[in-house]
Amino acid sequence: MKSKKITFPLNAWYAIAYDVEVKHELLARTVCNQKIVIYRTENGNVAALEDACWHRLLPLSMGRLEGDEVVCGYHGLVYNASGRCTHMPSQETLNPSACVRSYPVFEKHRFVWIWPGDPALADESLIPDLHWNHDPAWAADGRLITVKCDYRLVIDNLMDLTHETFVHGSSIGQQAVAEAPFVATHGERTATVTRWMEGIDAPPFWAGQIKQGLSYEGKVDRWQIIKFEAPCTVVIDVGVAETGTGAIPPGGNQGDASMSNRTRGVNGYVLNTITPATDGTCHYFWAFARNYCQAEQRMTHQLREGVAHIFREDEHVLEAQQVAMDEHPDHQFYNLNIDAGSMWARRMIDNMIAKEQTI
Amino acid sequence: MKSKKITFPLNAWYAIAYDVEVKHELLARTVCNQKIVIYRTENGNVAALEDACWHRLLPLSMGRLEGDEVVCGYHGLVYNASGRCTHMPSQETLNPSACVRSYPVFEKHRFVWIWPGDPALADESLIPDLHWNHDPAWAADGRLITVKCDYRLVIDNLMDLTHETFVHGSSIGQQAVAEAPFVATHGERTATVTRWMEGIDAPPFWAGQIKQGLSYEGKVDRWQIIKFEAPCTVVIDVGVAETGTGAIPPGGNQGDASMSNRTRGVNGYVLNTITPATDGTCHYFWAFARNYCQAEQRMTHQLREGVAHIFREDEHVLEAQQVAMDEHPDHQFYNLNIDAGSMWARRMIDNMIAKEQTI
Amino acid sequence: MKSKKITFPLNAWYAIAYDVEVKHELLARTVCNQKIVIYRTENGNVAALEDACWHRLLPLSMGRLEGDEVVCGYHGLVYNASGRCTHMPSQETLNPSACVRSYPVFEKHRFVWIWPGDPALADESLIPDLHWNHDPAWAADGRLITVKCDYRLVIDNLMDLTHETFVHGSSIGQQAVAEAPFVATHGERTATVTRWMEGIDAPPFWAGQIKQGLSYEGKVDRWQIIKFEAPCTVVIDVGVAETGTGAIPPGGNQGDASMSNRTRGVNGYVLNTITPATDGTCHYFWAFARNYCQAEQRMTHQLREGVAHIFREDEHVLEAQQVAMDEHPDHQFYNLNIDAGSMWARRMIDNMIAKEQTI
Repeated sequence: MKSKKITFPLNAWYAIAYDVEVKHELLARTVCNQKIVIYRTENGNVAALEDACWHRLLPLSMGRLEGDEVVCGYHGLVYNASGRCTHMPSQETLNPSACVRSYPVFEKHRFVWIWPGDPALADESLIPDLHWNHDPAWAADGRLITVKCDYRLVIDNLMDLTHETFVHGSSIGQQAVAEAPFVATHGERTATVTRWMEGIDAPPFWAGQIKQGLSYEGKVDRWQIIKFEAPCTVVIDVGVAETGTGAIPPGGNQGDASMSNRTRGVNGYVLNTITPATDGTCHYFWAFARNYCQAEQRMTHQLREGVAHIFREDEHVLEAQQVAMDEHPDHQFYNLNIDAGSMWARRMIDNMIAKEQTI
Repeated sequence: MKSKKITFPLNAWYAIAYDVEVKHELLARTVCNQKIVIYRTENGNVAALEDACWHRLLPLSMGRLEGDEVVCGYHGLVYNASGRCTHMPSQETLNPSACVRSYPVFEKHRFVWIWPGDPALADESLIPDLHWNHDPAWAADGRLITVKCDYRLVIDNLMDLTHETFVHGSSIGQQAVAEAPFVATHGERTATVTRWMEGIDAPPFWAGQIKQGLSYEGKVDRWQIIKFEAPCTVVIDVGVAETGTGAIPPGGNQGDASMSNRTRGVNGYVLNTITPATDGTCHYFWAFARNYCQAEQRMTHQLREGVAHIFREDEHVLEAQQVAMDEHPDHQFYNLNIDAGSMWARRMIDNMIAKEQTI
Repeated sequence: MKSKKITFPLNAWYAIAYDVEVKHELLARTVCNQKIVIYRTENGNVAALEDACWHRLLPLSMGRLEGDEVVCGYHGLVYNASGRCTHMPSQETLNPSACVRSYPVFEKHRFVWIWPGDPALADESLIPDLHWNHDPAWAADGRLITVKCDYRLVIDNLMDLTHETFVHGSSIGQQAVAEAPFVATHGERTATVTRWMEGIDAPPFWAGQIKQGLSYEGKVDRWQIIKFEAPCTVVIDVGVAETGTGAIPPGGNQGDASMSNRTRGVNGYVLNTITPATDGTCHYFWAFARNYCQAEQRMTHQLREGVAHIFREDEHVLEAQQVAMDEHPDHQFYNLNIDAGSMWARRMIDNMIAKEQTI
């Protein structure tokens, strides 16, 4: 018998919701194959409990809140925000084993993060840096989409932006992205892919941005600096600048990115964190942050819709890829040069999984 | 390899249809994982046959009746009401093995009952007493709903009415049902749960009934006498009376129910018989019978819709519970005091199943 | 563990599309459990490739044509019409293993045929004769329907037209079809079932045809000459003629069909070729060709719709039969006299499958 492959580490912070999604009401969401109910207590903290009553397994999310406690919608067992049962119907004595699992949660950078593994290891400093999502120097907006694919296919997708040319031809794709050389480097928990494109026509999306942001219409220098942080967060520094104004560092790909001067350009951060829902589905949280025209709400709205359109194109491809992979369960994949970044990302994820298995 | 658990006995009468559903036409229904076609013969009897042609397995329910015989809708094989093949196309000689299984059926208390087990054991005296469903002293009406859960979850639901407080809060639920003590007793094939609630406000459903039935609006005494008969029938004597008029017997739960005088109240019988369709679905036949205002058709209509609404609330919970149980196949359940009645019911069902396995 | 049964030979020509379906664009279709993409090259030939990119398995049918080459819709790998990869993004050197499988295809009798087995055995002379489908002496029209059943159930259906009486009672069915004797003969790769019906009333479909075609309204002689060619093609010569004008050969079923003179009748050919899509679904290509009133487009339209209606009746039965068979996986079927033709067909299919297994 074939044992099922483990597809994600448990000892990691995963985004479970945008902050505004979590109110003083019960919200059901699946993370790492675990059904979870989350809600805000009256003082605004977030509680996360196993979404199955200890007694008959009814999802607690079908019940209701009474103060900070959850009342099961079947027989009225009551649980506090720590998952301890505090009331049973028609009996005074509570069974001492009566409780449901509670999870460490932490709110940061506009996401609620959950730790589905060993609570003792839940170190808040491990939450990835997505500060652009609430930093007043940036205007950011985004969405959650639930995609029917292994979360790692989204990582693969983001670590190689070559696909923009073929999947997003009407917005951010252009031949240069598929042709320009790139450099992949890595640290212990991060992998970075950098691509500089010099003196090109901006693709439709960026031509619109630099025209609106800087009233500029000529040739541009374009950059993509993709940074993966294990197991599932990818931050991408993107943008275009007037060509020749210093955006591309001396030496290009071989140069030092910190020598780049992008002040004569428009700059965005694509923030992505992808949470495994089940082995074959994921919650894809994304946001697009910009540091120009921050107060223009119309632009924020337009960018959110424009980027959402781009991600729907990805979703279509990713779900088809998952179907094909499910039909070829033993397929051995070949890697191309463009897969260098995702190979590093996969290796780090595999290491995290392997480490948990040997504990 | 894990063998599949048997979830129901076969040697039992199961309701397959309301009497009015069965006409001189073919009706397909699944009982105990068996696909069955039923119809009335010209003299009004009910015939029940395996719903698969002996020749190529086409459901006979896709064919047509010719007199009292069923003609297969593919190649025209003809079967009589006993399941014997009486005609084959393009040949004179009939294969002697050509037949489909026929089932013992019996019509009683407005249901058609079928015996999916050994026909030699099909004793009509074992059909549960649901006489309220056609007794002229009672006005009754009901429905069939097909619920996506193991039929035993419905039994559990009915044997503990505590859930009314949490599932049916707008109609029959109230705090007293979750708090009042109850008594569970049992015989060889029956289990009874009795709960008396003294001097309470009637919940919305019963407040309406006693006002309509007896023009009474004050405090009430309320009762629930739940009687299970193995494997799948639950009759519940329910009602409210003017408080202090003798509805609650001396000694209450510890007293003798036959000493109760409920003449100053409104009394209903909730009749429930739940037939396993498959291991994970069931046909839930219910009716509500009352002994007041029997001739008021408007009240009959209103009660049928009102009770149907209550059962839809149960259906929602039961189907969610089944999904959760399917996701936790090896879950060990804990029982509370309120589960006493369903524990007896489960034990009797298990005994019936075990007895069949050792034959 | 039970090994999955093989349901079709691979070394055979299967219709994958009507000729007009295949344009200079990508068309996805599944044949013999294999996902395939087909398209016409600029010179009008048909190319057929495995529908999964070598790199990440994305269906190539989600990409686009660039000249005669297919560009993958994810990372832009390019394949020529032979399946060889000719371009990879961001790299000069191509991995020598980079290719997808290509299939032999051949266009004949208005169908595109594909050979899913060993290409070395793809002998075009093995394509079944369906010339009525483009012969100017005949007016033909037809359709493709995808049916949720094993393709062999369609073969069974066509090899015994007794079912017309019970499935198609309002058009071509009549008691005579279920009662008239028939003769089944066979060669090495073909099986033939012949049925002559003398001096009968034409059923509604044929009464309409002979009235329109020959202004005749009296008794008719009717014939059905069903010819199976392994593994999945059935050509049926059908029609009615004025009774007594020589349509039925001397000796009837025992006589020589070549002595039949059907010039005083209306004659159609029902062309059927059924391609396994998966083990439990098939592409059923059919056409109806006639040799009377060939120029009357209204009649062509009417016949196509009329025959389509008949095949929808079959589809309903076949899909129900497949569901029943899936529920009885080990069922042993009994055969009647009427199954003689399909028994020969099945034996030939089984032999083709067995032969491939021993290679």
